[in-house]
Amino acid sequence: MSAQSWSEFELIARLTAGLPSREEVMVGVGDDCAVLDVGGRRLLLLTCDSQVEGVHFTLRTSSPEEVGHKALAINLSDIAAMGGEPRYALVSLHVPRGCPLEVLEGLYAGLREEAAAAQTLIIGGNVSGTGGTEGLALDITLLGEIERGRVLTRAGAHVGDTIFVTGWPGESAAGLYSLLYPDYPYPPTACERLRSVHRLPRPRLAEGRLLSELGPQIVTALIDVSDGLSGDLAHICERSGVGACLEVGHLPLSPELRALAAASGRDPLTWVLHGGEDYELLFTVAAGYEATVQARFAAAGAAPITPIGQITEAARGLRLRWPDGHEEPLAVRSWDHFTSPSRD
Amino acid sequence: MSAQSWSEFELIARLTAGLPSREEVMVGVGDDCAVLDVGGRRLLLLTCDSQVEGVHFTLRTSSPEEVGHKALAINLSDIAAMGGEPRYALVSLHVPRGCPLEVLEGLYAGLREEAAAAQTLIIGGNVSGTGGTEGLALDITLLGEIERGRVLTRAGAHVGDTIFVTGWPGESAAGLYSLLYPDYPYPPTACERLRSVHRLPRPRLAEGRLLSELGPQIVTALIDVSDGLSGDLAHICERSGVGACLEVGHLPLSPELRALAAASGRDPLTWVLHGGEDYELLFTVAAGYEATVQARFAAAGAAPITPIGQITEAARGLRLRWPDGHEEPLAVRSWDHFTSPSRD
Repeated sequence: MSAQSWSEFELIARLTAGLPSREEVMVGVGDDCAVLDVGGRRLLLLTCDSQVEGVHFTLRTSSPEEVGHKALAINLSDIAAMGGEPRYALVSLHVPRGCPLEVLEGLYAGLREEAAAAQTLIIGGNVSGTGGTEGLALDITLLGEIERGRVLTRAGAHVGDTIFVTGWPGESAAGLYSLLYPDYPYPPTACERLRSVHRLPRPRLAEGRLLSELGPQIVTALIDVSDGLSGDLAHICERSGVGACLEVGHLPLSPELRALAAASGRDPLTWVLHGGEDYELLFTVAAGYEATVQARFAAAGAAPITPIGQITEAARGLRLRWPDGHEEPLAVRSWDHFTSPSRD
Repeated sequence: MSAQSWSEFELIARLTAGLPSREEVMVGVGDDCAVLDVGGRRLLLLTCDSQVEGVHFTLRTSSPEEVGHKALAINLSDIAAMGGEPRYALVSLHVPRGCPLEVLEGLYAGLREEAAAAQTLIIGGNVSGTGGTEGLALDITLLGEIERGRVLTRAGAHVGDTIFVTGWPGESAAGLYSLLYPDYPYPPTACERLRSVHRLPRPRLAEGRLLSELGPQIVTALIDVSDGLSGDLAHICERSGVGACLEVGHLPLSPELRALAAASGRDPLTWVLHGGEDYELLFTVAAGYEATVQARFAAAGAAPITPIGQITEAARGLRLRWPDGHEEPLAVRSWDHFTSPSRD
């Protein structure tokens, strides 16, 4: 049996089943970051993620600088998804034969800029060949920190909690669509904005910190939207042992996303519900605290947040409710970089 | 200009030149590990290294289990090369299309065994495609710990210090040679042993701890022999601002290595001086403390250590002295996984 018969998550679950642990490992495999208590004032957060040419990016539509930015940004987003602050990065490059030096310098220029903006230091790394002429890859490990008692995981959502999302999920997928199918009469300004969201995602670090300050009694679960809203909501539900119902009429659709959907004849909901690489934050708020959270975000001038549904009993699964009250099951159709066809 | 016109070390130096730092980063890019003070009782050590199919290994001569063992072992060796204790690992897999599930399960079985032997926990990871049908790769990040004031770097060697090496450098290169050129009449027992050293290197963790306990006043510099004795000695000399002279007559040549050299008509010194992937420890001892270090190793039942030369003025460079007193420059001819031709 080929490994690609499994989703990335099934495969990780199978390979890492029953790994030993110790008491200082507060969160291990299965959340956005591992959480360690190494005896300092704060807890350590650890995450690693890759960007591979032909799987996650192509230099035909992104510059090396943009790829460097994004490779670090997706790891920063994993720190944001625990409520933490990023601190240190290790960068491992896999370089195909014949790769121009300018490409690597461009990647590093993007990495440096993204790191500086997030007050993160690049403290180590490694360079290797790929063994062939393809497959340029960046593997980044990021260390962050978070105060004790402030860690937000995927596992704390309760029945009756309200589901929120930051910003405008689906924009990255719409931007990617316009890059893959460039021949529709897209409105240029909207198109440029959505492509930029796709190429240069902005990790929601400030918003993650706000949620962490509110604490796990109020913000019961948190994840970043990397696989798509439906897929990442499913991760929260699975880890928390709950179900969820999203209100179609409450989902935030940006004007630019609506414009691209209209121009290409696509259903904008598909992008919003199933588009990946948004790096928005999806979180649940204990019943009665919704206004507190909204006031805190407004006072801080943070990203807009939208209540989009409720946590339900596990037996109800994932559901969508339309404005007329009609309900249907919400299928998870995430982009899976592991099993999906190559992007290149 | 192609990136491969540069050695791995030149390329890393160029890409990471002038990176910002902060006071809590006690060692950054350029040693076996980065060293961080995050406020705990001990300091943190961080390192990352990759194993790529066709560059570092081939499944034609190594089993997936052996590759998993080795991928973690080379990172454990980097922790040993600072005197530290390994604690936590993150594992990033790059999986080509069509890769059998059994290969990944074999890799993980090897990783689990190696981690258990080193009391190291696998706490996170990532799985990605490679974008093609080749280039299976493991990228491992390892966290370790070390007591304050006990860190051993490459940078402290002084003129007059004695150079030591653990065990039997060159055995891994000899074992690899016998795998690449299997048709010589090698003595089977010696051949099997050296191939096993190549496939399943044993990181010198206990020896690194002994050196760390002796402390940086006695053990002035430490590195693991991954690039080859000459290349890694050059790293110590460069970082410490010194030269070195190795005594040819003192270099430890194991009986098995001599036997393979005789059978294949190769010069055993080439393997000892320039063979990579030994994962022995190379270190310098302050003048007058040689017997102290040797007694400590003997009392602990640790690996044998051999004094093989002296640290000299930088202007003398790297030199070899023959038993008749004749001296010649020691050329650095490391195996460079980045610029050397593919192994596959």
